[in-house]
Amino acid sequence: MPTQLTSASDGIVTPAMEGAARAEGLAPETVRAEVAAGRAVLPANPAHAALQPLAVGRAFRTKVNANIGRSTEASSQDEELKKLAVALRAGADAVMDLSVGPDLAALRMAMLRACPRPFGTVPIYEALSRAGSSGADDAFDPDVLMAVIAEQAAQGVDFMTLHAGLLREHVPLAAARLLGIVSRGGSILAEWMVNNGRENPLYARWDEVMDICLRHDVTVSLGDGLRPGCLADASDAAQFAELEVLGRLVRRCRERGVQVMVEGPGHIPFDQIRMNMEKEREICDGAPFYVLGPVVTDIAPGYDHITSCIGATAAAFHGASLLCYVTPAEHLGLPTLDEVRTGVVAYRIAAHAADVARGLPGAREADDAMARARLDFDWERQFALALDGEWARCRYRATAAPGVTDHCSMCGREFCAMRTSKRIMTRLGKR
Amino acid sequence: MPTQLTSASDGIVTPAMEGAARAEGLAPETVRAEVAAGRAVLPANPAHAALQPLAVGRAFRTKVNANIGRSTEASSQDEELKKLAVALRAGADAVMDLSVGPDLAALRMAMLRACPRPFGTVPIYEALSRAGSSGADDAFDPDVLMAVIAEQAAQGVDFMTLHAGLLREHVPLAAARLLGIVSRGGSILAEWMVNNGRENPLYARWDEVMDICLRHDVTVSLGDGLRPGCLADASDAAQFAELEVLGRLVRRCRERGVQVMVEGPGHIPFDQIRMNMEKEREICDGAPFYVLGPVVTDIAPGYDHITSCIGATAAAFHGASLLCYVTPAEHLGLPTLDEVRTGVVAYRIAAHAADVARGLPGAREADDAMARARLDFDWERQFALALDGEWARCRYRATAAPGVTDHCSMCGREFCAMRTSKRIMTRLGKR
Repeated sequence: MPTQLTSASDGIVTPAMEGAARAEGLAPETVRAEVAAGRAVLPANPAHAALQPLAVGRAFRTKVNANIGRSTEASSQDEELKKLAVALRAGADAVMDLSVGPDLAALRMAMLRACPRPFGTVPIYEALSRAGSSGADDAFDPDVLMAVIAEQAAQGVDFMTLHAGLLREHVPLAAARLLGIVSRGGSILAEWMVNNGRENPLYARWDEVMDICLRHDVTVSLGDGLRPGCLADASDAAQFAELEVLGRLVRRCRERGVQVMVEGPGHIPFDQIRMNMEKEREICDGAPFYVLGPVVTDIAPGYDHITSCIGATAAAFHGASLLCYVTPAEHLGLPTLDEVRTGVVAYRIAAHAADVARGLPGAREADDAMARARLDFDWERQFALALDGEWARCRYRATAAPGVTDHCSMCGREFCAMRTSKRIMTRLGKR
Repeated sequence: MPTQLTSASDGIVTPAMEGAARAEGLAPETVRAEVAAGRAVLPANPAHAALQPLAVGRAFRTKVNANIGRSTEASSQDEELKKLAVALRAGADAVMDLSVGPDLAALRMAMLRACPRPFGTVPIYEALSRAGSSGADDAFDPDVLMAVIAEQAAQGVDFMTLHAGLLREHVPLAAARLLGIVSRGGSILAEWMVNNGRENPLYARWDEVMDICLRHDVTVSLGDGLRPGCLADASDAAQFAELEVLGRLVRRCRERGVQVMVEGPGHIPFDQIRMNMEKEREICDGAPFYVLGPVVTDIAPGYDHITSCIGATAAAFHGASLLCYVTPAEHLGLPTLDEVRTGVVAYRIAAHAADVARGLPGAREADDAMARARLDFDWERQFALALDGEWARCRYRATAAPGVTDHCSMCGREFCAMRTSKRIMTRLGKR
């Protein structure tokens, strides 16, 4: 069966490409060309019937992914379906279900039906979940992982995080770090390799993985199992050794006609973000970069949507195409519904700010319209243009004088610079 | 009377320099040299008895200012004194009282007594407030402004925003903008100039201003009356025409022995921040840059602490020394107590992230300690290191299983990468 990549390479514009082009106001040919070049992916599993496709790549709007999913100790199916709805309503462009525990297939099917956006998973979570909650340190079984990948692909998952670049030889590099391995999937594979003295099964059996992905047009999201978990571990030998392997795997995906993007850090000081983005582009031959934050300081638990939003803006400005949100709950617990919403909005800010900064055509139109609405004291127009207009309206009304619309409570009427400025403009005939 | 600048130029290390040096763990001579060179200011009005001095400049930790103050329509003296306490408790390095309305001197005295940090004002607000709430468009009186500056200086105000660089010839440039003038002080002066056909009185009477500042060692904060109020107006002719004048005023301050810093934008796209910082440094001969944000997109009312934190991090990385916070209420109303706290914490994140990124000695120690505390599951140590530990503890406890300390609810015990990573480290003899 053709994938979006093989079709694009054959010069064919698919309905998914047309849909993704419409969503951006671009020509379908642009989407085709970007996908063909491997600079964009169009995660669109044909079995995901509810999908309205979106393209991920530098030629397009920067996209935001929201991670949801229950842990073994918190939340439930109902709660996670609510989080999906909240994330979509807040404007998430993609959603990943990171659930662990029992009955994952049923939850995933419910999510796939409710999700019109590209939907991703990390199959190793289900593979380990099937081993039960025995607490055994080595319950992971590579054969189960392969089965899970195939089953999830058949269900309609659009993209999957696969930590295939973390090799046995990398583990000592990671163990020498301050924080070791902070990727769940990465740590599971690393422990299995250490305990069994064998190579990463995803890497060793990559051709099998490719067969499955090709059959269902699953987009591979090459996981960064060795992403740094603190500033001290950023841009180190472990991180970049894995990245070299990811670059090789990008080429193997493309050779097989499988769409591929690459996952990136994590925890990175602000000054190292540009270098990280450029390095990925070079080593991975321009494959779309999908980053988690990065957070730019480790000392702000409770505010990591902010610390990471700073890094995400710089990352998207310098090269990333898909931003995985970080919520205020990061490092402290599983996010609540409200934290999911906050995380998505924060990341839409980062994505949009970067799109404006990199000169994406049309990106600044909404900002200019907002400025005009501010000058006009057209509050409803401001709320309509706002990334979270409902919240903005609510906050405005909380301190606005009843019935007043020609200023706000911040400066009051006499000290409102906008009112004064309009009088000056009128007097000088500029308005 | 000597100012910190004249003392520094004479090779004298003052007690204020010693105090500021202690606060940073630096040699007093470093503070003296930076102040003497004009690269740092030490706002320390001798009449501000409660002050524990702090230096503002690139050789030091990036500082955070919190604006408080009632508007004509919201808040009260008591409420604003509470905001002062909240801002200080959250870690603000400086506070400005922007109050307007009646009885400002009494409120300011109460604040000065309660504030051990450099305390600033915008005297034109009081000058206009004394004209009463007549709503008259042209109630501003330059003589009253001069009297207010002198009275506030005598009271103990450490630094004052003076919009002396906005000249009559600049007003048409600003009137041609999308949003005109968004600075309250700037718009008042511009309207007065247009209505009276005269030059900016602060500029015209700068020598008088200098006399007052010299007498009380008030640090001048040159206001940017023409800071852009939307992305469309960023880095435009009006903004940079004013900046040229600010550069000249910096030199006039230094010639008189008056300490001076320069205020900057505002609303700036992410890609223009570096250029703005470099331009200020060049035109203003390295005078400390004190920026408001900048916000990097106009479309996120309700979240402008985040949009501006992104810009503030880039600004502090590329050249700013003092960051004026923006709260979540910006563009919508006067901030509440909780929004003041959130704004300060967000800006401490920006300041710290920038200090780490620019390699300020010792800046990353707290981050590394946090990483070690995470590996050790030492939650109390994490909260002690956190920029807002009280909030982090509260959020952690909200979803942590009772009595459990060796993982959090995000991943649960079996899927905790930190637990797995520690087992690997132990097995490989790295721990």
